[in-house]
Amino acid sequence: MNETNRPHVVIVGAGFGGLSAARALAKAPVDITIVDRRNFHLFQPLLYQVATAELNPSDVAWPIRGVLSDQKNACVLLGEVQDVDRDRQQVQLKDGRSLRYDWLVLATGATHNYFGHDEWAPTAPGLKRIDDATLIRRRLLMAFERAENSQDEAERQALMTFCVIGAGPTGVEMAGAIAELAKHALVSDFQSINPRDARVVLLEGGPRVLPPFPESLSTFTQRSLEKMGVEVMLNALVTHCDARGVDVGDVHVEARTVIWAAGVAASPAARWLGSAADRAGRALVEPDLSIKDLPTVFVIGDTAAMKSADGKPVPGIAPAAKQAGQHVAKVIRAAVSGKPHPGAFRYRHYGNLATIGRNSAVIDFGRIRMKGTLAWLLWCVAHIYFLIGARNRMLVAYEWSINYLTHNRGARLIVGSDANTEQRAP
Amino acid sequence: MNETNRPHVVIVGAGFGGLSAARALAKAPVDITIVDRRNFHLFQPLLYQVATAELNPSDVAWPIRGVLSDQKNACVLLGEVQDVDRDRQQVQLKDGRSLRYDWLVLATGATHNYFGHDEWAPTAPGLKRIDDATLIRRRLLMAFERAENSQDEAERQALMTFCVIGAGPTGVEMAGAIAELAKHALVSDFQSINPRDARVVLLEGGPRVLPPFPESLSTFTQRSLEKMGVEVMLNALVTHCDARGVDVGDVHVEARTVIWAAGVAASPAARWLGSAADRAGRALVEPDLSIKDLPTVFVIGDTAAMKSADGKPVPGIAPAAKQAGQHVAKVIRAAVSGKPHPGAFRYRHYGNLATIGRNSAVIDFGRIRMKGTLAWLLWCVAHIYFLIGARNRMLVAYEWSINYLTHNRGARLIVGSDANTEQRAP
Repeated sequence: MNETNRPHVVIVGAGFGGLSAARALAKAPVDITIVDRRNFHLFQPLLYQVATAELNPSDVAWPIRGVLSDQKNACVLLGEVQDVDRDRQQVQLKDGRSLRYDWLVLATGATHNYFGHDEWAPTAPGLKRIDDATLIRRRLLMAFERAENSQDEAERQALMTFCVIGAGPTGVEMAGAIAELAKHALVSDFQSINPRDARVVLLEGGPRVLPPFPESLSTFTQRSLEKMGVEVMLNALVTHCDARGVDVGDVHVEARTVIWAAGVAASPAARWLGSAADRAGRALVEPDLSIKDLPTVFVIGDTAAMKSADGKPVPGIAPAAKQAGQHVAKVIRAAVSGKPHPGAFRYRHYGNLATIGRNSAVIDFGRIRMKGTLAWLLWCVAHIYFLIGARNRMLVAYEWSINYLTHNRGARLIVGSDANTEQRAP
Repeated sequence: MNETNRPHVVIVGAGFGGLSAARALAKAPVDITIVDRRNFHLFQPLLYQVATAELNPSDVAWPIRGVLSDQKNACVLLGEVQDVDRDRQQVQLKDGRSLRYDWLVLATGATHNYFGHDEWAPTAPGLKRIDDATLIRRRLLMAFERAENSQDEAERQALMTFCVIGAGPTGVEMAGAIAELAKHALVSDFQSINPRDARVVLLEGGPRVLPPFPESLSTFTQRSLEKMGVEVMLNALVTHCDARGVDVGDVHVEARTVIWAAGVAASPAARWLGSAADRAGRALVEPDLSIKDLPTVFVIGDTAAMKSADGKPVPGIAPAAKQAGQHVAKVIRAAVSGKPHPGAFRYRHYGNLATIGRNSAVIDFGRIRMKGTLAWLLWCVAHIYFLIGARNRMLVAYEWSINYLTHNRGARLIVGSDANTEQRAP
């Protein structure tokens, strides 16, 4: 590590929050160590396109060392944090190493939440990591292959039924993308089956899709999905889930492929700190995002219950995590250069975006609401713009335009294997 | 499957041989079923670039269904063949299904050969499949990460030593690409280590690198590799190989990453048929590539001991497999339309190519020999040209030009995990 007398800032997690904090401290007189389990930053908002074979893993991920290679005061450590020692100001790594900090930023994100039914996880994978995306892609594509080979009509229909649980932005995007995969990209690939016969079922526990959006956009989104052939079931709370399919009370949906997009649980950052947390496990933070009685320790992004200066809760989206990282960097910068504390975190909400499919998206800018093709174009531009790294931007733009023009998905490779898939083989 | 009265051609394996046979039968009055364990055709000659984080898996692989989607008389079956019933003319799949054939083409390729030391396989993976390439990539990149974190100088040096066994084209390409990865692409990524200190050791059992090439090109290749910092050891037969490194008689090379590029073994096609095979397990074939006493069964590509009409053995390279596939298609076309048998397979050798690194390659066209930059440019053009699918061609060209201009490798993601890597963690 750097052996200087400058304060040591340890940032755990190289997601949007952690990385933006590191970048915003580029010129501060501190030494930064950014710790992550993975060697890459993941652009999660596009992960569903990796899962549906539209993009490659490396299109939506960028090596952390590459992102920070021009930043002299930052070093990257590949490792898994498992605890924090508040008294000795140390971060404990799983492999036994520890890391002393003067300032600590925990930006460790969230994982899936099965609401007490972790036994559903093997059947219904969520979509948070690259490995989740390649697993889901393999299952989607293998389901069509198995259906093609199956002689049993009922089994074939079950193989061609895809159930997405949760109709937030991720669930809507997944359902739309699977419908397009079946009804366009794969359409001429098979002899025995017609991929157009695939059933895509989107289950939502609440009364409408896209709960954080205004009702008019929810209605538009549902209608668009239905036009694409997606069956939307509202007020549908999943009661059971296994290799045969999904139960919603008395209703059984026979499906061999189930995707979980229903809930997230915070990482154990609050537990490491022994600090207060809300019901979802998110650390309660002070207005400046620090932890009570620990003014040099911050928790940001999906693993914190962040509130804006106006008292409103901050949503769990990428721009919020980025702004939080920048705010924390500002607090640290002020402290190390003897300037006054910049005060409470003020979240600026630009809007909510969700894409429904080819040519269709919804955007809620508060006063301005957009839907349809124009919203979709804006969604594309925004996502390409926010992708880190010019190389990835160009590649994604290129792959998208090819996919758009040809309906063809080159990334539809089935690689690796997973126990669950093998087990289900006939 | 297709239920017509036309003869049924079953092709096992969608590599260069199997796919070219299928394509060449596009207009023949037959029904084709092409069976493969994987849903994609793999462009093996570029696989080492996936292993060294220059290309993405989907840049060198193309879904079989996509390649054949415009071919009305062909259908694709995802499945693993485990035997052939000569008497009932059936191919047996692992899942219990069987497939009747009138004509059978076995093009099942080759795998690694550890010359009786299969226990070396976990330590020294070979490079035949996409999963091999991502495994090797993960190990290469993790070795640098571990070295960065290691406090022990000897361990650090062992982590930064990369041993490639076998100096055929694949071994030469791997060694060159690893040297470039260390000395250029990763150079500004680390704080504690200098990736330029990496040792790349290329071990060859014979007296010179690139045995199939003329001696002058072998000499040139060795000198180029050495200029790039690769240590070449000739007449170096590996006697032992484990997690500590590689032994060549009394000489021990302490290395944490070992790659096997030394030998190939044919797939069990000859065993399935109960037919004669050579020492490497390759099926002995008649001059028209059929099996003795089985004129409707052909074995082609790396799994056959093919001979050209002039009696010369045919090398195990992609163009040879392609030509063999075309020849077999010609024999079948002639038979089903009552035309005379086209006679023996005549292999046309265009040349041998191997790339050494950025700006350098060797090409042996028989009378014409090329080396250096011009050979390298020709190598790039040839490989892009032969990549199936315009989309992949464009993408590879794009990634290569970016990599060339920036020395940056965007594909350097560490995903998944493997037991062997985990086990070695400190």
